[in-house]
Amino acid sequence: MFSIPATPATRIYQDERPFRFKRGGELPGLTLAYETWGELNADRSNAVLLFTGLSPSAHAASSADDPEDGWWEYMIGPGSAIDTDRYFVLCVNSLGSCMGSVGPASDNPATGKPWRLDFPALSIEDIAASTQRVVEHLGIGRLCAVMGPSMGGMSALAWLKQNPEGARHFLSISSAPRAEPFSIAIRSLQRELIASDPDFADGQYTDETWPRFGMRMARKLGMISYRSAVEWQDRFGRDQQSLYPKQPFTMNFEVESYLEAAAERFIGAFDPCSYLYLSQSMDGFDASENHADLAGALADVRLDSALVIGVDTDLLFPPRQQGEIARTLTAMGVETRLEMLPSPQGHDAFLVDFRNFGSVVGGYFRSIARTIDNGEFAA
Amino acid sequence: MFSIPATPATRIYQDERPFRFKRGGELPGLTLAYETWGELNADRSNAVLLFTGLSPSAHAASSADDPEDGWWEYMIGPGSAIDTDRYFVLCVNSLGSCMGSVGPASDNPATGKPWRLDFPALSIEDIAASTQRVVEHLGIGRLCAVMGPSMGGMSALAWLKQNPEGARHFLSISSAPRAEPFSIAIRSLQRELIASDPDFADGQYTDETWPRFGMRMARKLGMISYRSAVEWQDRFGRDQQSLYPKQPFTMNFEVESYLEAAAERFIGAFDPCSYLYLSQSMDGFDASENHADLAGALADVRLDSALVIGVDTDLLFPPRQQGEIARTLTAMGVETRLEMLPSPQGHDAFLVDFRNFGSVVGGYFRSIARTIDNGEFAA
Repeated sequence: MFSIPATPATRIYQDERPFRFKRGGELPGLTLAYETWGELNADRSNAVLLFTGLSPSAHAASSADDPEDGWWEYMIGPGSAIDTDRYFVLCVNSLGSCMGSVGPASDNPATGKPWRLDFPALSIEDIAASTQRVVEHLGIGRLCAVMGPSMGGMSALAWLKQNPEGARHFLSISSAPRAEPFSIAIRSLQRELIASDPDFADGQYTDETWPRFGMRMARKLGMISYRSAVEWQDRFGRDQQSLYPKQPFTMNFEVESYLEAAAERFIGAFDPCSYLYLSQSMDGFDASENHADLAGALADVRLDSALVIGVDTDLLFPPRQQGEIARTLTAMGVETRLEMLPSPQGHDAFLVDFRNFGSVVGGYFRSIARTIDNGEFAA
Repeated sequence: MFSIPATPATRIYQDERPFRFKRGGELPGLTLAYETWGELNADRSNAVLLFTGLSPSAHAASSADDPEDGWWEYMIGPGSAIDTDRYFVLCVNSLGSCMGSVGPASDNPATGKPWRLDFPALSIEDIAASTQRVVEHLGIGRLCAVMGPSMGGMSALAWLKQNPEGARHFLSISSAPRAEPFSIAIRSLQRELIASDPDFADGQYTDETWPRFGMRMARKLGMISYRSAVEWQDRFGRDQQSLYPKQPFTMNFEVESYLEAAAERFIGAFDPCSYLYLSQSMDGFDASENHADLAGALADVRLDSALVIGVDTDLLFPPRQQGEIARTLTAMGVETRLEMLPSPQGHDAFLVDFRNFGSVVGGYFRSIARTIDNGEFAA
């Protein structure tokens, strides 16, 4: 079984109840890795549920138990934008991932070997429903807020549909109500690159025959789609390493070395089948499915307020899609703020543009602090 | 030797003088395929030189000799935007390509086998300089206009630097004064996909061992970068073929079939080494090289007017780069029009958005018709 070793702060939730997948198939139980920050207050009104993007673990931020930086280190902590002196934050490694939670890389108890392509088809709704089991396990009723960036925003939307009165506030960050064909095309090509690698071997790769080429190409394409032309022009320009070697296809430009290094780091750090399943789950997501539109799909949802953030250079989750979420919530009577940030870093801006994102998310969490009905945490 | 069969209207120019490449290496002579439309007028003042993008042949439009549609059929012809009743149009298959002109797919006379990776490194400046030999061969002095879309606009800029008083008018269409890292990254990944295909075999592929996988993946990535999210959302939405087959990486969405079909058509139609060389030549292009800026590089250029067209959804040649060309020419005192078109088709819009492009280019050519100093063609 491939799994990133659990970090000191990771807790494992074992659920012995069967879990049925939306598109068929079931697991006899669930193993889900999660981390928390801050303390749940007396009336359990200060819980923030954070869904992740495709590849992150539950380790969103450092803590006393694990001082290593998390993937959203700047955002979460005492005095940070999501202030863990006020809020109790929960982050679960997504079902289907390979960082402690059960997924295609986990052993199938029936065979003692990794599930790989025998794992049930995964949907965003499955990620949402499995995560709710951890929320219930922790004894949390109504959440103060549910949120997520990228794929995490899709999971948060799916969770809201499953738990229409489950949260008072909602933050959608560089996300979308459904996968559109441009993003589908990019993810589809990434999956084809991985699955076509002879070393993928229909999912029967070993540690020795890891589909390195496919993972490297997929990650490079991912990096291109995650960032933006403006950022790279400022960052790399036409800086070169070695000009015009004989062969016309070797690396010349700084940006090419950057992609190579980023891809090389990723290859051993994520299970190829997990990647395929999570990527496919995003393509399959449409919050409006079986409804005329998003408003119809969200009709039962009750929220006190919402914050929708997008970035104008985001190629994968374009501003248009943030607008649809914000307009729909506003039309439903939810007090909604749409923030279109001018970050040059494209889709990845939420990970790196701490000034813009930290300030908007922090302002929002300070403004909703009054809804935490507890002396200790009252604004 | 791989070469697309010459079409009936294709003419071959043989130049027996050696040709030195900018970055080293030379050929003992040049073979260049070209086509023309319309008639050169008495004082040879109505010639329009059209440079192509990466993959097109010299067959830009149909004619009596070849009724088959060309790659810019709507743009060129009697009464069309580039009106061949007024103008004499010349289009040359780029040096390095595989559609009649000499390139890596041509036989190396020294070995009797294709050049492949032994072909000299290609630059945009080489394409411009070799093309000028055809212009001179046809007895054309100062051109009425030099123009090109995409890579062709780069070649036209390089040609202007080599022939600063060589044209009265200049049209840059969805092009750029230099390759920026975002476009470099995409092209670099395409080249890596081709060159890493085991069937590429360091350029020693045969008809039986063509690097089909690499070419298919490179073309799919190309298609993604050539179009736009907006167009595909309108065109494909979430239309599906077959929902959720067992394996998580097979084609589900209409957009995936579209890419597959487009890639399949391309595989046998372009030589892999030609693709690598032409792609690399774009990355290597910087009209400002050895100058402080573009204005310095173009200081000697004399033009009566210029038209710069861009598309706001173009990912590869973004509006910012069109702006740089237009601003520079304006500052030089050239009467310059910058048209930023709202086409949804991204970089490929010039090929398909005949309404917007035909109207702007046609209007420009009508407005400069007065510069054709000939009774027959006077406005």
